[in-house]
Amino acid sequence: MITIDNISIPLPTIRRFPAYLRLLKEHANRGEVWISATTLAEELKLKPIQVRKDMACTGVEGKPKVGFLVSELVLAIEHYLGWDNTTDAILIGAGNLGAALIGYKGFENNGLRIIAVFDKDRRKVGSQIGGIVVSQIEDLAKTVDKFGINIAIITVPAHAAQSVAEMAVEAGIKGIWNFAPKNLNLSDNIVIQKTDLVTSFAELSAKLINHLDEQKQIQGK
Amino acid sequence: MITIDNISIPLPTIRRFPAYLRLLKEHANRGEVWISATTLAEELKLKPIQVRKDMACTGVEGKPKVGFLVSELVLAIEHYLGWDNTTDAILIGAGNLGAALIGYKGFENNGLRIIAVFDKDRRKVGSQIGGIVVSQIEDLAKTVDKFGINIAIITVPAHAAQSVAEMAVEAGIKGIWNFAPKNLNLSDNIVIQKTDLVTSFAELSAKLINHLDEQKQIQGK
Repeated sequence: MITIDNISIPLPTIRRFPAYLRLLKEHANRGEVWISATTLAEELKLKPIQVRKDMACTGVEGKPKVGFLVSELVLAIEHYLGWDNTTDAILIGAGNLGAALIGYKGFENNGLRIIAVFDKDRRKVGSQIGGIVVSQIEDLAKTVDKFGINIAIITVPAHAAQSVAEMAVEAGIKGIWNFAPKNLNLSDNIVIQKTDLVTSFAELSAKLINHLDEQKQIQGK
Repeated sequence: MITIDNISIPLPTIRRFPAYLRLLKEHANRGEVWISATTLAEELKLKPIQVRKDMACTGVEGKPKVGFLVSELVLAIEHYLGWDNTTDAILIGAGNLGAALIGYKGFENNGLRIIAVFDKDRRKVGSQIGGIVVSQIEDLAKTVDKFGINIAIITVPAHAAQSVAEMAVEAGIKGIWNFAPKNLNLSDNIVIQKTDLVTSFAELSAKLINHLDEQKQIQGK
């Protein structure tokens, strides 16, 4: 449960918010002013009761027969995701994954702006990735302080993750998005979001073996 | 629950397998032959009972006082993840994210090899990303068939995801790793793994707002 402005929002609802937002913006672009919970449910393949509960969390009230004002829902959801103000972040680790995140179109409209990139490798310092000049890691604290940055995105190799995370926290970072395949050991005060590509692939891999086995058995019978 | 070789393995166990594997390989590299469940539990910050249950799923039996043979555990876990044979995959969408995945060091030892890259954009065809020449999407079916590929990784924009996924399935793809911020509508026969970066960022964002609010309230009191 996440509490924002004294409203408690379940985490699964937060996770669905970006999908709602995407859809609502598509409807807004087509000039549509109202949207019903039924339409949202159909297009996102959710149960209408689920959509109604999620919408209740936004504080936006629907109107009988017509539904919700699209613009009102967009503003409310963006507010709860903190996407009404762009969130500035720094990125540590100027490799391929770092470049991908900087260039990721999906973030464009979702309030994430990567403003600085740091790397320990002296050979990378001064070069550009995604239009951002790579800075030496020693300048991290200065940048975090100067621009009041709260979020660091970590895309370094596993063995370097803990040490750069500690540097970031010491510099004043409050939230870390960790792409390194390594669990970070930090104070409970720090919000950590982990995206582990290897674990995701493991899941796909195992499910697929299971599935292909089943098919073989069916065909063998 | 995933069933492989008639052994049922819970999904959370599958998700922990890559972390075990990483740790076991580190121990093997240091020349260590045996490992205890207690050591595994301590290093991965898991409960020993959890580790014992996970190890039971591998079918490897521990020896009293000394624990498990590291090499046996590595082989067993790699087998259940299908990583004892490298899995070949194709990638659709030759953008930054595609390049990142091709260059991602984390996959190197985890049995995923991207052997071909496709893109709809004629201007990209013939260029290289991560050392692989980009092919036209029309050649997808031929490649899937020729090399017996089961997995497609989709890194195209949201609006193109459904159509390229359908092409892949028609070509014989059985498992899709979808990075496009879009739910795919495919036959139940297809295994889909979704990695949605925007949703992960939404979660981090909302947790952080919640957390900063709390801190403000504590400080204000």
